[in-house]
Amino acid sequence: MTPPFSFKLLANDGAARLGEITTSRGVIRTPAFMPVGTAASVKAVFPDTIKATGADVLLCNTYHLMLRPGADRVAGLGGLHRFMRWDGPILTDSGGYQVMSLSQLRKVSERGVTFRSHIDGASYELTPERSIEIQNLLGADIQMQFDECTAFPATRDEAERSMHLSLRWAERSLAAFRDYGRQGRALFGIVQGGVYSELRAQSAEVLTSMDFPGYSVGGLAVGEGQKLMFEALAVTTPLLPVSKPRYLMGVGTPSDIVGAVERGIDMFDCVMPTRSGRHGQAFTWAGKLNMRNAAHIEDTRPLDEASTCPAARDYSRAYIHHLLRAGEYLAPMILSWANVHFYQDLMAAIRESIREGRFADLAARVREAYPSTTVTEEAASDEQGA
Amino acid sequence: MTPPFSFKLLANDGAARLGEITTSRGVIRTPAFMPVGTAASVKAVFPDTIKATGADVLLCNTYHLMLRPGADRVAGLGGLHRFMRWDGPILTDSGGYQVMSLSQLRKVSERGVTFRSHIDGASYELTPERSIEIQNLLGADIQMQFDECTAFPATRDEAERSMHLSLRWAERSLAAFRDYGRQGRALFGIVQGGVYSELRAQSAEVLTSMDFPGYSVGGLAVGEGQKLMFEALAVTTPLLPVSKPRYLMGVGTPSDIVGAVERGIDMFDCVMPTRSGRHGQAFTWAGKLNMRNAAHIEDTRPLDEASTCPAARDYSRAYIHHLLRAGEYLAPMILSWANVHFYQDLMAAIRESIREGRFADLAARVREAYPSTTVTEEAASDEQGA
Repeated sequence: MTPPFSFKLLANDGAARLGEITTSRGVIRTPAFMPVGTAASVKAVFPDTIKATGADVLLCNTYHLMLRPGADRVAGLGGLHRFMRWDGPILTDSGGYQVMSLSQLRKVSERGVTFRSHIDGASYELTPERSIEIQNLLGADIQMQFDECTAFPATRDEAERSMHLSLRWAERSLAAFRDYGRQGRALFGIVQGGVYSELRAQSAEVLTSMDFPGYSVGGLAVGEGQKLMFEALAVTTPLLPVSKPRYLMGVGTPSDIVGAVERGIDMFDCVMPTRSGRHGQAFTWAGKLNMRNAAHIEDTRPLDEASTCPAARDYSRAYIHHLLRAGEYLAPMILSWANVHFYQDLMAAIRESIREGRFADLAARVREAYPSTTVTEEAASDEQGA
Repeated sequence: MTPPFSFKLLANDGAARLGEITTSRGVIRTPAFMPVGTAASVKAVFPDTIKATGADVLLCNTYHLMLRPGADRVAGLGGLHRFMRWDGPILTDSGGYQVMSLSQLRKVSERGVTFRSHIDGASYELTPERSIEIQNLLGADIQMQFDECTAFPATRDEAERSMHLSLRWAERSLAAFRDYGRQGRALFGIVQGGVYSELRAQSAEVLTSMDFPGYSVGGLAVGEGQKLMFEALAVTTPLLPVSKPRYLMGVGTPSDIVGAVERGIDMFDCVMPTRSGRHGQAFTWAGKLNMRNAAHIEDTRPLDEASTCPAARDYSRAYIHHLLRAGEYLAPMILSWANVHFYQDLMAAIRESIREGRFADLAARVREAYPSTTVTEEAASDEQGA
């Protein structure tokens, strides 16, 4: 029998939560970071390697996969897990965000969104019903309601209109999803409302009444900055049920992550580890390194000699610098691997610190290495468009 | 004590030879195929993965490494083996071939070649003495005399002039190298002479009298086609000492390789496995597959289910096709790995067939899967320029 989707809260440290999500494809230890496999591949990293970094769950993008290779084709090939050789849980977004950021000639109506593919200009329609159908053709273990990601900046009226549309789409998504829950899959509602506290509160309240198995916080990391993002979280998470997982979409930097965990978030995804890797940046416990910098040209030290990751431990900085300058594939391969591993190490350290009641100390250490409020969405838009 | 460089002939099957080269960094089983790590990286393949495919030895390019990161810098960083994390033997070319094919404003004189870097236009000089100095700064186990790769087509007079220049540079290379032999390193002479049998014979005779530890056949796979290449080999290898290894530079397709082994060649290198992999082609025992072809779009079979290579065995053709269309890094990563592995499997099968006296049967099987006389140098020039 397929185990039902469930969440267990194991410990608190302040508002920070240690938990476990059970899915039919395995347990997700939370706080969790999901590497992003936009088009059914975490860019430049083998799936076995992703698993070895400690990742429990991946995110894939509905928009990209519906366009290429197509949801029906993936289903015909045995589903996304088999297609991309990942037997752990997979979370998919609803497609709504990328339709807004990537597609052409889009037109939003009550019914849904029509748009043209950024790849070949072909016409498509996404509705709550079609989004759920696609996510189930892909075979996603955790699915997102179809929503409209409210733009930033947006007036209060715009944010309110958009939030209410997303709530109506939440109802329709839930209705379309209903039967799939028996297969151990879960649908998350998405809290919207821009940077307006009352709207966030209203969205959270209505969604909670619909009793989703989990809740996402959407429409953040879209340009508002870390301060406003944290303020939005602070008003949202206290209104979400303690017994359900909470996912902050598209976030973020190590500093963003500890700040969000501090405000009760359990799940994250971001293209930053792989995108930064392709651009020559390395995440380490001592901070971010720009490996293109000439300072590394004769540095025989590895990225992090204390890491258990072969990519971080075994190659000299001088070699990585050389590979970047020479345009060698091995540079993004090494750096993406090392960065995905670092993010998993970060989450493991966060979980351990919550268990031991010393999360604040860890958060302080992370903020020291990553003081800047890096703008997450700049990294995101690059990879989503790739 | 460092073991001296040596070659042991273990078996013959016709003119095909099974042997073993001993170097201070390990044994090279011959016939051997050397993956090409132009700029200190076999493109898109981790060094540990290269080792696991069964490769005993790599080739690196002196021209690329002298320009970037620079031979003195590599020496300062502990040598090429440490730099690129390859503890097996490394063979370097002399730089002569790429100076001719890639550099700008080159000027050949009796003394050597002056040229400008294709990367930044800086001026360099390569002479026999400097080439040997660079190859030793890199720490190459098997080094090449500095030579002039005779252009194709070339008149008999041009080929003769060029061949004699290479012979005089062979003398100077040997004189410059002399002391390094004590460290277990070896210098190979390079037979030139274009497609002219008498010139090839003369070159082989003079070089043999100089008593190099091994002999390369150069100036082939430059546009002359497989038939003329095999004719040149047929007149050359019988004139080379039985007790020394013979290396056919820059070759080739599976068909080229079995034809050259048949004519007494022991060592090969070519960018084809990795270059073809980056361009979507897969080498299998059933022939070459173009994975961009729409025929693969819903094919759940792996490249080769009988392969011991995870890249050839574990991913569906449909997935690889998708990765190529989506421009994902994982496509060249999977295909380059699978192709390097196929080439090593091919060499292992060749060695086993010679041992068992059935090389002709294997050669026939390979020619059936690879009937075409693919032009090796087209693949080569692409990667060397990359």
